Amino acid sequence: MKNINVGMIGFGYMGKMHTMCYDIMKYYYNTDVNVNMYAVSKTSKTSFPIKFEKIYPDYKSLINDENVDVIDICVPNFLHKEILIEAIKAGKHIYCEKPLAADIESANEVMEAYKKYNYNKTSRITFEYRFVPAIMRAKQIIDEGKIGNIIHFNFKYYGSEFLDPNRPISWQSTKEKSGGGVLYALGTHAIDLIHYLIGDIDEVYADKRTHFKKRPLLGTDKTVDVEIEDILNVQLYSGDKMGTLLLSQVAAGSGIDLTFEIYGEKGAIKFTHDNPNVIYYFNNEDEKSPIGGLSGFKAIETTQKYGKAASFPPPRVNIAWTRYHIASIFDFIDAVANNTKAYPDIQDGYKVQLVTDAIYKSAEIKKSITVK
Amino acid sequence: MKNINVGMIGFGYMGKMHTMCYDIMKYYYNTDVNVNMYAVSKTSKTSFPIKFEKIYPDYKSLINDENVDVIDICVPNFLHKEILIEAIKAGKHIYCEKPLAADIESANEVMEAYKKYNYNKTSRITFEYRFVPAIMRAKQIIDEGKIGNIIHFNFKYYGSEFLDPNRPISWQSTKEKSGGGVLYALGTHAIDLIHYLIGDIDEVYADKRTHFKKRPLLGTDKTVDVEIEDILNVQLYSGDKMGTLLLSQVAAGSGIDLTFEIYGEKGAIKFTHDNPNVIYYFNNEDEKSPIGGLSGFKAIETTQKYGKAASFPPPRVNIAWTRYHIASIFDFIDAVANNTKAYPDIQDGYKVQLVTDAIYKSAEIKKSITVK
Amino acid sequence: MKNINVGMIGFGYMGKMHTMCYDIMKYYYNTDVNVNMYAVSKTSKTSFPIKFEKIYPDYKSLINDENVDVIDICVPNFLHKEILIEAIKAGKHIYCEKPLAADIESANEVMEAYKKYNYNKTSRITFEYRFVPAIMRAKQIIDEGKIGNIIHFNFKYYGSEFLDPNRPISWQSTKEKSGGGVLYALGTHAIDLIHYLIGDIDEVYADKRTHFKKRPLLGTDKTVDVEIEDILNVQLYSGDKMGTLLLSQVAAGSGIDLTFEIYGEKGAIKFTHDNPNVIYYFNNEDEKSPIGGLSGFKAIETTQKYGKAASFPPPRVNIAWTRYHIASIFDFIDAVANNTKAYPDIQDGYKVQLVTDAIYKSAEIKKSITVK
Amino acid sequence: MKNINVGMIGFGYMGKMHTMCYDIMKYYYNTDVNVNMYAVSKTSKTSFPIKFEKIYPDYKSLINDENVDVIDICVPNFLHKEILIEAIKAGKHIYCEKPLAADIESANEVMEAYKKYNYNKTSRITFEYRFVPAIMRAKQIIDEGKIGNIIHFNFKYYGSEFLDPNRPISWQSTKEKSGGGVLYALGTHAIDLIHYLIGDIDEVYADKRTHFKKRPLLGTDKTVDVEIEDILNVQLYSGDKMGTLLLSQVAAGSGIDLTFEIYGEKGAIKFTHDNPNVIYYFNNEDEKSPIGGLSGFKAIETTQKYGKAASFPPPRVNIAWTRYHIASIFDFIDAVANNTKAYPDIQDGYKVQLVTDAIYKSAEIKKSITVK
Repeated sequence: MKNINVGMIGFGYMGKMHTMCYDIMKYYYNTDVNVNMYAVSKTSKTSFPIKFEKIYPDYKSLINDENVDVIDICVPNFLHKEILIEAIKAGKHIYCEKPLAADIESANEVMEAYKKYNYNKTSRITFEYRFVPAIMRAKQIIDEGKIGNIIHFNFKYYGSEFLDPNRPISWQSTKEKSGGGVLYALGTHAIDLIHYLIGDIDEVYADKRTHFKKRPLLGTDKTVDVEIEDILNVQLYSGDKMGTLLLSQVAAGSGIDLTFEIYGEKGAIKFTHDNPNVIYYFNNEDEKSPIGGLSGFKAIETTQKYGKAASFPPPRVNIAWTRYHIASIFDFIDAVANNTKAYPDIQDGYKVQLVTDAIYKSAEIKKSITVK
Repeated sequence: MKNINVGMIGFGYMGKMHTMCYDIMKYYYNTDVNVNMYAVSKTSKTSFPIKFEKIYPDYKSLINDENVDVIDICVPNFLHKEILIEAIKAGKHIYCEKPLAADIESANEVMEAYKKYNYNKTSRITFEYRFVPAIMRAKQIIDEGKIGNIIHFNFKYYGSEFLDPNRPISWQSTKEKSGGGVLYALGTHAIDLIHYLIGDIDEVYADKRTHFKKRPLLGTDKTVDVEIEDILNVQLYSGDKMGTLLLSQVAAGSGIDLTFEIYGEKGAIKFTHDNPNVIYYFNNEDEKSPIGGLSGFKAIETTQKYGKAASFPPPRVNIAWTRYHIASIFDFIDAVANNTKAYPDIQDGYKVQLVTDAIYKSAEIKKSITVK
Repeated sequence: MKNINVGMIGFGYMGKMHTMCYDIMKYYYNTDVNVNMYAVSKTSKTSFPIKFEKIYPDYKSLINDENVDVIDICVPNFLHKEILIEAIKAGKHIYCEKPLAADIESANEVMEAYKKYNYNKTSRITFEYRFVPAIMRAKQIIDEGKIGNIIHFNFKYYGSEFLDPNRPISWQSTKEKSGGGVLYALGTHAIDLIHYLIGDIDEVYADKRTHFKKRPLLGTDKTVDVEIEDILNVQLYSGDKMGTLLLSQVAAGSGIDLTFEIYGEKGAIKFTHDNPNVIYYFNNEDEKSPIGGLSGFKAIETTQKYGKAASFPPPRVNIAWTRYHIASIFDFIDAVANNTKAYPDIQDGYKVQLVTDAIYKSAEIKKSITVK
Repeated sequence: MKNINVGMIGFGYMGKMHTMCYDIMKYYYNTDVNVNMYAVSKTSKTSFPIKFEKIYPDYKSLINDENVDVIDICVPNFLHKEILIEAIKAGKHIYCEKPLAADIESANEVMEAYKKYNYNKTSRITFEYRFVPAIMRAKQIIDEGKIGNIIHFNFKYYGSEFLDPNRPISWQSTKEKSGGGVLYALGTHAIDLIHYLIGDIDEVYADKRTHFKKRPLLGTDKTVDVEIEDILNVQLYSGDKMGTLLLSQVAAGSGIDLTFEIYGEKGAIKFTHDNPNVIYYFNNEDEKSPIGGLSGFKAIETTQKYGKAASFPPPRVNIAWTRYHIASIFDFIDAVANNTKAYPDIQDGYKVQLVTDAIYKSAEIKKSITVK
């Protein structure tokens, strides 16, 4: 049994989610790793049913305890930077909620530290959709050449969390603390998937809107201007492939409405989070007659078929959102235990940040922008 | 240009449907056949935009005019018998709305005439679902052995036409004139499809219900007992294959809700009239890994891909209910023109009648009945 | 019985479609109008089963025969202009396949004639999707305020007609004769629907690609450069509403893949041509608890429920593409008979043309363009 | 913090599932209960990551340790009886995998002990589908009268676990140890749901088949006769409501294919495990015009909206199979902690057993059987 010690910094909704996954992953995977949890003092005061091995007065003392192997960062976006730099400097493995940072300047500072300290530990920026089996299968199908050269693609991620005009301002809705609106909240997931499935994005054109321009300030009777965008439409490019990214957090009837479609010269792939247990695949080389021959989209059942290590429950069992986080945590911890790399890592997170920055710049000047 | 003369007997909703199809099929198919319409006097008084070449005082004079090639029968079910017998005796081609007859005794009389007069013309009992390309493709897939030996199957046909308890009694809802309820109205279609796709039904067990037991009598302020069934559940057998047939005309939210699924040793097929433009096919021999491999139901696009003769509009165009009737009429008229057989014919209609009779008998005695 | 005389100019696939609809609409609608067909000499030589009352040596003599009431134009796009102008000058009713013209200059010339001759007859540019009951119901739901102020919207129209790189060049694929690629073939339909459902488009940003850059020249062993676009992504604006329009004719697995979604402050609407018989509606004011309450997308069954005049077959019968054309033709002919306006008309067609022109200009300069 | 001590008897796949849920439910629910695990010696030798507080040499000593509050039974079906009786006698709370017992005689013995010892503790036979929010919402909708008097209903549960003819015989596939085939494995779930949603089943007619009649005997080169059924079709009745239950474990392409539809006088409900996050509801009283009015099936989003106690992750997150087990375990443990009843309990399990017994008897004599 190998012990890995994880230090939690931040303990809101996502911090709890990570913590739960560190604990319960042992049921889902054959592993000889045991995770012990550490925290800073503020964190330890929540009601979550977790036993921390040790409580630190501040994040620096936690990071600099050589007993702690992994730093897990779940604080508001604008606080990522200083913690990431400290953790990089200390040579810790890092599991950080997306995005990497709240703005490109902060992200650049992180990457400078990354280079300066020759960071080569296992890291993760949490883009958990890479761990949906349907999407993992999509990646395989593309890599096997089954849809041929990709021609064009569409990604969409819609929610309705901000449709209520009376939803008050919180850290998620201020430019300063969040870094952005629907692009940061939902869009970064889709951008990482595009990098994963299609290739690096090298050019963007974007336009954005804040539909509800004023919102109540929590705990006051004032309303304040909303700085972040509710809607964002992007045209993007990866080499000769062209695509779109459509984002909204004011889309009535949308839950976690992530969908994509990728069209190639030999076939196509579709995914909708409405049914995360299948990936749709069209093979243009299937015979088309008599009548419709064997030509059509196939709903490949992916369920919980992660492969060998994912031993329980049985592969045929359907899955949902929580399960992707368990898979991401295991993938990361397993890499830490074996001292290997795992992806998406900090560099993948930085690539997403470059794109988000270009998107905002493009939306500002209403021109196409090269990502660099 | 070949002329075929069709004599209409009965001119309600289905009579008009047939008539329209005789006329407009020329647009959909490459054909050198021209259809001319004849009718009995009652028929000719409706407002339908059709020019009849000649009007006869009664159906017998129409049938016995040697100028008339085809007798098309669209009268209420209980009147089929005498007209069919007259048409058989006269050696006419016959296009008859389903069912063959309103009861097995009448059907037997028809078949006696059929034998006595050595009937060998082209005939059709109108089970138009055989002419849905998706279902035609299902037939091919099964015949090609793609799903292997059939193990079991389910057919369902639900509507909501009788859900309103104030719908008055009409000929369709009297035992005497219709012969039965949902079994005659909807079930006969499914039974014919089972014969077409699976094989002859040789045993049934059935139970039925009349949910709304009284209904208004049209044009009066009386209510009368309803004799016909609203719901019918059947277990049926074809050799070692077992299946079910579920029928209802009181199913809230159901339009033309015909669905089936057929499971074999090597695969499965599913159809739902919600999307009549695809047939779903599962190949159990597809690779199942990595992750889900290529294993899943494929939605084969069948649209209007009838094949060569169906030249217009283009095969990729989607279709709906009217189109199946056009296909059935063309298939029949083309056979008449070429002096060949076409199916489903009177004998197919009789096989359906044998099953409906066994179903009612079984429902009465609550025992399994052999079809013979 | 009222007689309306229609003169066909052009008789390819769409000309035949219109002609069929003029004839068969009488079965679907209660109408006392009878349509007689006229044609120019070239037209009359095809094999389509239609009897023309009179054949003219050229289109001008047809247009200028005062016996002819309606001019139906189905020639290649670049020929629309001169025929439209002649028909406008002659004061004829006009039923013209979309688009209005092959370029904005031609469209402007048409509109000059329109003004010069005070054209006030019934006209139609054929955007037949306005006649899908599901889309008609969407219009009503929006107009009733059921989804509140519209926030944003997405339209997509994908096909795969040009995915085969060996498809040769035809008039549809030359800039000169067609005017454009997927924007003209598919996009104009979606633009008209946006005008119908959302409002006038006043700004666009677009980018386009020709994926297959060379194609065989029919009847030769040469390949030539393709001038028209295969893919087009557009961001578009109507007042404060923002939206997208995604077009492709090289999308593997796509048939007639027209979809849209419209999000408002109080609800949302979705349509997919996969099932043209329903419109999806989400009411954000539905109760959301206990559990999910009554909150969710409803699939409103629209089938063939056109209303009173559409008397046959019954409203519950499902429909498909051909039926929209019949509805468009009837709507137009009925207006001609009653001397009323009907929409979409020439001015609607011109509005679409303005948008297509702005889209191409934007794609060229890679900047946002105001439509005017 | 309240401690509840659970003694596991049996530790195969389902035993592990329960054990995981006892542990991880604390993350999903606000609870002050802590569960400690106990086991018999055999159990403790598996590799599952669980710390047992104490290990007993046999199940009797575990049951009779007064420190143990709950007996959790996950042994093969035929062993349920003696353990249940011992646990009842000892007055323990009981969480037992379905079914109650392997045959009616054993079930009767259990119920005799139940009466004899005046058993009144919290118990559960694990029919976890009662804990799918979509199905919980279905129950509410029915109880609120929203679909009116139920007319008829269909339940189906299909899998493909036995489609491979080379799958060897195991305890699940012997009559002696399992009690039955697909009826025990899948059907009991559906029967409990019918009891929950519709009412007690009082009459059945059934027919069954063993499609693959011989299977390999594990660890030998022999094949043996298969005693259990692969397919079972049932017609069933609850008062004046009639329904069907279709079961197969040889249905190609089926994963966990549980579906049902319930039709009432005022509406209908549909569920399919393909998307366990919605329940479909049709309200027949919705306006039906203009066009389709507002009439159609609504997909109510239920996701993880269990209500107040289910505090984490957020209600909008989608769920899958594992989550229903967590909900069932929490519901039970919460009742134990509060000394209340919870359902489905042993008596519910017995009612299912009575129906399964009647189904097998009916299938044997091919007659309808009254459940008593």
